[in-house]
Amino acid sequence: MKGEPLVSIISAGMSKFGKRDGLLARELFIEAVSEAFNRCPKLEPKKDVKALFVGHMGEAYEHQGHTGSAIADWAGLVGIPATRTEAACGSSGVALRSGIYAVLSGLADMVVVGGVEKMTHRTTAEVTEYLAMASDYPFEQWHGITFPGLFALMATAHMHAYGTTQEQMGLVAVKNHYNGSLNPKAHMQKEVALQTVMTSKYVAWPLKLYDCSLITDGASCVILTKPELAKKYTDQPIHIVGSGQASDTIGLYERKNLTSLNSTKLAAKAAYEMAQVSPEQVNLAEVHDCFTIAELIAYEDLGFCKVGDGGKLVESDETRLGGRIPVNTSGGLKAKGHPVGATGTAQAYEIYLQLTGQADKRQVIDAKVGLSHNVGGSGATAAVHIYRSEQ
Amino acid sequence: MKGEPLVSIISAGMSKFGKRDGLLARELFIEAVSEAFNRCPKLEPKKDVKALFVGHMGEAYEHQGHTGSAIADWAGLVGIPATRTEAACGSSGVALRSGIYAVLSGLADMVVVGGVEKMTHRTTAEVTEYLAMASDYPFEQWHGITFPGLFALMATAHMHAYGTTQEQMGLVAVKNHYNGSLNPKAHMQKEVALQTVMTSKYVAWPLKLYDCSLITDGASCVILTKPELAKKYTDQPIHIVGSGQASDTIGLYERKNLTSLNSTKLAAKAAYEMAQVSPEQVNLAEVHDCFTIAELIAYEDLGFCKVGDGGKLVESDETRLGGRIPVNTSGGLKAKGHPVGATGTAQAYEIYLQLTGQADKRQVIDAKVGLSHNVGGSGATAAVHIYRSEQ
Repeated sequence: MKGEPLVSIISAGMSKFGKRDGLLARELFIEAVSEAFNRCPKLEPKKDVKALFVGHMGEAYEHQGHTGSAIADWAGLVGIPATRTEAACGSSGVALRSGIYAVLSGLADMVVVGGVEKMTHRTTAEVTEYLAMASDYPFEQWHGITFPGLFALMATAHMHAYGTTQEQMGLVAVKNHYNGSLNPKAHMQKEVALQTVMTSKYVAWPLKLYDCSLITDGASCVILTKPELAKKYTDQPIHIVGSGQASDTIGLYERKNLTSLNSTKLAAKAAYEMAQVSPEQVNLAEVHDCFTIAELIAYEDLGFCKVGDGGKLVESDETRLGGRIPVNTSGGLKAKGHPVGATGTAQAYEIYLQLTGQADKRQVIDAKVGLSHNVGGSGATAAVHIYRSEQ
Repeated sequence: MKGEPLVSIISAGMSKFGKRDGLLARELFIEAVSEAFNRCPKLEPKKDVKALFVGHMGEAYEHQGHTGSAIADWAGLVGIPATRTEAACGSSGVALRSGIYAVLSGLADMVVVGGVEKMTHRTTAEVTEYLAMASDYPFEQWHGITFPGLFALMATAHMHAYGTTQEQMGLVAVKNHYNGSLNPKAHMQKEVALQTVMTSKYVAWPLKLYDCSLITDGASCVILTKPELAKKYTDQPIHIVGSGQASDTIGLYERKNLTSLNSTKLAAKAAYEMAQVSPEQVNLAEVHDCFTIAELIAYEDLGFCKVGDGGKLVESDETRLGGRIPVNTSGGLKAKGHPVGATGTAQAYEIYLQLTGQADKRQVIDAKVGLSHNVGGSGATAAVHIYRSEQ
């Protein structure tokens, strides 16, 4: 099936990302799935949808697990198989992969995959602790290191190996905040100057406040079906032509080097081969910029530039809107926000908008091939998907 | 594909269930997966296994999420797609379903599916709280009700509607403890008298201590592949011929009646139809006896007896070893133990042993068709699978 559509996306939805006081995760999900249903009036949800996969990272936020069924219930889909997948911040990238398995299996020809997280009602200390559960308990958490510290280790390793600078990391924040300023659903819709990034306080050297993604509430979803059924529901299906998921060691201390993510490389290789697409053919990408260094590493691991040249690539402006390969047109985790369980399918949502020409002020002209890259934790999980428009 | 094998189980493993002090969940999983690998010397795990699905219910127990990748890492499978599924006590029944999707999809021809939970290092109060996260937060947990209370509501409804007695529930405990006494991996390997059950203290009327399943540590797994590949690895593959998963409302308060689980009925209907098997053709079943009342309700929802006759069925001795349809030959959640994330694939493990003639003192003679029934929470999830031996 090389290069052929695996499955097709017939619709997508996303809640407003931000501080959404007074709402439960399930209510945020209703916002996302209602948009997806409304976009696709030919779909009869209760009759057509055969399974639900929901990425959801943390029970602790709302003292609520069993999220697959809870959300099926509140989304009006009670009865269908409903499954929560969890792979840290990669939870809904993995839900997407699971939905693809389900459609290809022949057991479910129409599947909703999405993700959700409600975080902002908790203190920063609580969120930091809950997020840390995705790293290794005995060998990382127990010693007090949390995610900013783990990614700071990667950043320093990258600086040491390739001469990457704090300014280069800062440019990722500047670019993504600019993109976020064009996205009415983004958590932060304001531009930031490099000076602001550079003078923000250190969280874990060399990462400063503006190098870190946001604590955000939100939900997102896409609706998958078999390619041969897609045209029955929409004139503008988007096809997923490549899917890769891979794992790496849970602990950073077990890895040979900290300057790249092997999970990303394995997942990208699988997705590119399946899609018969090369990195040069990708028109735009949503990559996992949980910290600015992560976007630079993603450039390299996804083949958008040579190993070690991530910093130079962001300096070249090629990943800006209007550049050779715009990255994180949505604003990314950095500005759109990072409701952890929702991030993977929020990336798919942005690609869907772009490839169907609905991205408004941030539209990439003639976008035909998109890529999403969702990472769990410090890279113990990665999911890469490649999308192609109908034309 | 009606009645034909969906996938085949070529091996299975299970850790000793019990109080496993000093071990991490991942170490318990190694015990299970090592048994599975050792049973199947032709398998080259690192080369052959293409994906891992792990049912794991609670991050809180070990302050550890991202369990799919953590376990892939420690099981020597790092690199492959590794996914945690969570559906409360149905987490690994759902992992099994997800593994079936993956094999049928054509993207992964050899998959390990399993589950794990480490619980006993926590206090009973902590475990009760963590388990409660699988019920509805705003409308159940918040008001103080926990699972014994929720199942007590079902028990009283069943008593009221059908005249079911506390003695009948107690007979489930007596039967399953007897079976557990024959299972060297069971948490409790001792018989109990009905008198002991009936005089044990009330947890939530009418449920007494001996009506409740155990807080247990453990892990379990099965290895799935395409039916056409199975014979390459083993002379005794077991085929999964039916698979059903369904959801119900997360809150008990939303249901029309409390005397049956609609999720079980939907999942069973799907599995029976796919397998072209009727309840009368099932030779043995592992059902979700988290509380004794749950086994009686399962008898009815799975079609082993008429609606309302669950109590009479256990009295008839037909579900005992040697009876018409032995249920929970492993000892069930009641005596084998209930490490919540591990329970679904532990049921599959027992069916695997029985259908391959390896169940020793608890062997069901001429067992050819088995059924497993795994429930999440108070029934917001159910997964039913039907297995057939090669002969």
